[in-house]
Order: sequence, then C-alpha cells, then structure tokens
Amino acid sequence: MENASHEVSHQSPLDGRYVQIEKLEWASFPEGLCEGPIKWKLLNVSPETGAWTAIFDCPAGSSFNRHVHIGPGEYFLTKGYMEVRGGDNDGGSTAIAPGYGYEPCNAQHDKTYFKEDSEFYMTFLGPLNFIDEDGNTLALVTWQGAQTAWEMK
Amino acid sequence: MENASHEVSHQSPLDGRYVQIEKLEWASFPEGLCEGPIKWKLLNVSPETGAWTAIFDCPAGSSFNRHVHIGPGEYFLTKGYMEVRGGDNDGGSTAIAPGYGYEPCNAQHDKTYFKEDSEFYMTFLGPLNFIDEDGNTLALVTWQGAQTAWEMK
Amino acid sequence: MENASHEVSHQSPLDGRYVQIEKLEWASFPEGLCEGPIKWKLLNVSPETGAWTAIFDCPAGSSFNRHVHIGPGEYFLTKGYMEVRGGDNDGGSTAIAPGYGYEPCNAQHDKTYFKEDSEFYMTFLGPLNFIDEDGNTLALVTWQGAQTAWEMK
Amino acid sequence: MENASHEVSHQSPLDGRYVQIEKLEWASFPEGLCEGPIKWKLLNVSPETGAWTAIFDCPAGSSFNRHVHIGPGEYFLTKGYMEVRGGDNDGGSTAIAPGYGYEPCNAQHDKTYFKEDSEFYMTFLGPLNFIDEDGNTLALVTWQGAQTAWEMK
Repeated sequence: MENASHEVSHQSPLDGRYVQIEKLEWASFPEGLCEGPIKWKLLNVSPETGAWTAIFDCPAGSSFNRHVHIGPGEYFLTKGYMEVRGGDNDGGSTAIAPGYGYEPCNAQHDKTYFKEDSEFYMTFLGPLNFIDEDGNTLALVTWQGAQTAWEMK
Repeated sequence: MENASHEVSHQSPLDGRYVQIEKLEWASFPEGLCEGPIKWKLLNVSPETGAWTAIFDCPAGSSFNRHVHIGPGEYFLTKGYMEVRGGDNDGGSTAIAPGYGYEPCNAQHDKTYFKEDSEFYMTFLGPLNFIDEDGNTLALVTWQGAQTAWEMK
Repeated sequence: MENASHEVSHQSPLDGRYVQIEKLEWASFPEGLCEGPIKWKLLNVSPETGAWTAIFDCPAGSSFNRHVHIGPGEYFLTKGYMEVRGGDNDGGSTAIAPGYGYEPCNAQHDKTYFKEDSEFYMTFLGPLNFIDEDGNTLALVTWQGAQTAWEMK
Repeated sequence: MENASHEVSHQSPLDGRYVQIEKLEWASFPEGLCEGPIKWKLLNVSPETGAWTAIFDCPAGSSFNRHVHIGPGEYFLTKGYMEVRGGDNDGGSTAIAPGYGYEPCNAQHDKTYFKEDSEFYMTFLGPLNFIDEDGNTLALVTWQGAQTAWEMK
C-alpha cells in the first residue's frame, strides 16, 4: 500500500483576499439560468466548503429561472425590489432595498423577479440546482462551475 | 408590506442528540444508488447546513454507484476494505480498516467498491449527486432525501 | 438507559427570514470592543453553525479592538475606507468602497481602522475572539453573545 | 493602491486525503486539558472552516476538563462508556458503545468522564474553548492549535 500515509497532511492557514469591486467588469450571467440581461461579478470561491460570493445587477423585468439553494444563502439587496418565492402575496418575501434575506438550505425559488432595476450581494454555501418543472436538474452550479463561467467571460 | 420584519428572528441554541446505534435496525440503502445489498443507519441530519451522518454495512462485492460529493465528506472505515476513486492502482485510495479518509467538495467517485465485508461511518456536508456516465443527475440525495428514505424504511 | 434513543431525531427544514434593514434602529456596538461610536444592526444568527450577519456604521476615526476571526468572515464595504490588518502599507488590506474582503479562519486583526465615515456588511462563521496584547481572551463574541447584546440594546 | 485586485483569486479543488490509522502513534493529549492519560491521534484539519477530526483513547477514570464546543461536534463512540454533560442522571447523555452523539454549537461540557476504557472518533467544527469555573478562557484549541500540538508530539 504505497499511499497509505503515516502522517497527517500538514495544512497552512489561508491568506486574506481582497477585491476592488468596480475594477471588475460586469459579465453576463449564463443564458439558460435567467431571463433578461442579468450581469454579475464573482467575488470569491471557497473550495473546501463549496461556498461562493457574487454581486448581481438585475434590470427591471429580469428574473432568475427556477432553482433550489443546496445550502443556505444570504443576500443583501442594495438597490431595487426583488420578489423571492412568489413575493409577499404568495407566501414568499418581497425584498425592498436595503433588505436582508436568509434563504435556507433546500429553499426552492420558482421565479426570482425584479420589477425595478436592482442589485444585490449574496453569499452561497453549496451550489444552485437549476431545475425544470418536474424537479429534474438542468444545471447544478457549484463553486467550480461559477468559477469556470466567470473565467470564460 | 405586511411581512417586512422590524426585528431579527430570535434563535435558540440546539439541543444535543444521542443515538444508541445497535437499537436502530439496518435498512436497505435505496436501490438504484448501489449494487448489492448495502444497508445503512441514518444517525443525524442538520438542516441548517444540509449535513448528515450515517453508517453503512457493505457486504463483499457490493458497491456504490457513480456519485459526486457536493460538499466534503469524512469517513472512518471500521471494518473491511474499500476502494475509492478506483483505488490505489488507479489514482484513488484503497482504505483498509481502520482507515480515515477526507473526500473533498466535488470529489467524483465512479465506483466505490468493497471486496470484503466492510463497515464505515461517514459525515457529509451537503448532498450526494448520483450521476450517469455523462454527468447528468440521476438522484440528488440531500439531508431531506436521506431523512425521507430513512423514515420510509 | 432512559434517554438512549431508538430513533433519529426528525428535523424540519428552516424557514426563510427577511429583515427590512432601515426599520431596525442602529445600536451602539458594545464598549470595550471598539474605539469611537461604532453602531451596528444584527441581521441574522444561525445557531447550528454559529454563523451571524450584521452591518456596521463606523464614523471617521473609529476602530475595532484587537480580535481574531475564529472562522472565516466576508465583508462588503459599501461606504468609506477601512484598514484591515495594518492596511496596504503594513502587509494587510486597505479596503475602499465598494470593496469585498475574505478574512480567513484565525485571521488576527490588531486594529481595524476607519479614516472616513464607513459602512460595511459582514457574514461571520463562528465567534470573534477579542484579545489583549498577549493573546489572552477578553471577550469571545459568539452568535449567542451577539444576539444577547443586540436584544439588550 | 498596489494590492487592490482586478481579478478574483483562482482556487483549485482540494485533493483527497487518507490516513492509515494504526500507522499513527498515539500521542498524549495535552496536560491541563484532561485528567488521566488520555491519548489521541489527529486525523485531519480543514483550515478554511477551522474543522478538525481526531480519535481519542480514554482509559477508565480519565476525563476531559471543562470546555465549550464553539461549533458543532459529532462523536462515534466505538468502545466503552462516556458521560457527557453530567450523563443521563444529570440532564446530559451517557453514551455506551456503539453510540453516536451530536453536540451542538456552544454546548458546555463541565466534565466528560470515562468510567471504562473507551475510544471515540470525533469531528469538530471550530475550536474547543477550555474554561475555568467562571467561564474565562484557559485555552482555545483551534485547528491550528490542534495541529501544532500534534506535530510537537
């Protein structure tokens, strides 16, 4: 057994990271995951846990397609108006900037709709599972998928 | 805006949990996720992060089908012999009890094979994504799916 | 053995949470943890992992006292100018709004200084350990401590 | 602003890790944290979240000193008998092998006592905060402290 280790792998602390947000250019959020010209900036990926962080620019009338949060996500809506899980009138939340929301593990968002120009910052633990009406996976966007999409921009 | 809260939701600490393992009966691990009569006991689910914990009884010749660990998983092999990611001879690990393994976020396990009767304890952060040869999701087993499968046993 | 369970504790999914930020009043951040009249709003606590989320209003000249991040923290500086770990001139980061930073697990911040009126949003995994010059704990601010301080405001 | 980044730090997936447990030698668990000759083997540290994993060998009559779990911990008692938080007779749990326990974030263990020779495997998210009777920190054992103690053995 060549690779049966006698010692535990030594690990080093991580370095801090900093991003000057306005120096990043907005990229188009992948087609097929949204309706309308949503743009985004990826700010961080954390490969140990699969967490990632981004900001999103969502013009009036745009929306994200049906997806499930595989782990919890927290958003800080800095501009505009976002209807989550159907909005207030349908059992969900209507966020008005400045608004904070905690979306729990396995929350399903059938449509996240922006009726005004909006912007939000969000931290995700784990992937987003974009699904069809029957719950079949169309795209499972992990931290690696997010990084790949960002770097191809 | 009826449900726009003026106060932050108060949260209580969680209670400790304890399971006397031999008092739980082994259940069959769901067909379609494995080959051979693998049995399991679910020990815990953690809905905030989507973590879950279980022990598995894997007779000689059994195997788990192709899957991806959506978050990190740690196993403690207490009995037997487990080939992970092809085993030592194919770039993966061959675990021999007592063995410990850390499977990172997004690790793909094409076949996890037991050539002897084996038993292991494992903690999972996030779901297992069982996939076909082309990477399409066949079953995304979250903490909720694990709990449902366990309670239907 | 009365409390040795025969069954695994059933867990329910968590509900979503929403906070209309401007409806919360600013509270003074606890004395002894900062210099100058820093104010904050607690937005969320997550008792399973010990995570918590808040926004901070830091007038020019204020600073946070020496502390260690026990788990990773991510900030989104929406206004002003923040010197972290000594700032750019001393091996740390100088954040200028809009700026994003990832502070890794066990990052020590001897002084976090605001030379202009500043505001930032931050998610924390685990507590902040406020320490003296010798590294002795002065206050370990967990999610529960943060919640208690907030509710006493 | 020399170090204000124009690009997000690229991250690579982690490698898997494996430890052949019996090839590691038992080390003495640090004095001052326990009573009696408790031994341990560190199996893994995870620097991003501050998680760590170990097994402990606890002879009859030994105990761990008063501590608080800063994040959740899960144990799998493979041998013996462990009284947690006072045991069954005092509101806590008495674990009998094979037993599984989930100790929540901020759980305080005034004394963890082994009345028989015992062994357990445990995963920890975040540090253990060893405290005196008044709650003052005596030692905050993070993943880095655990790694340092292990490597000095």
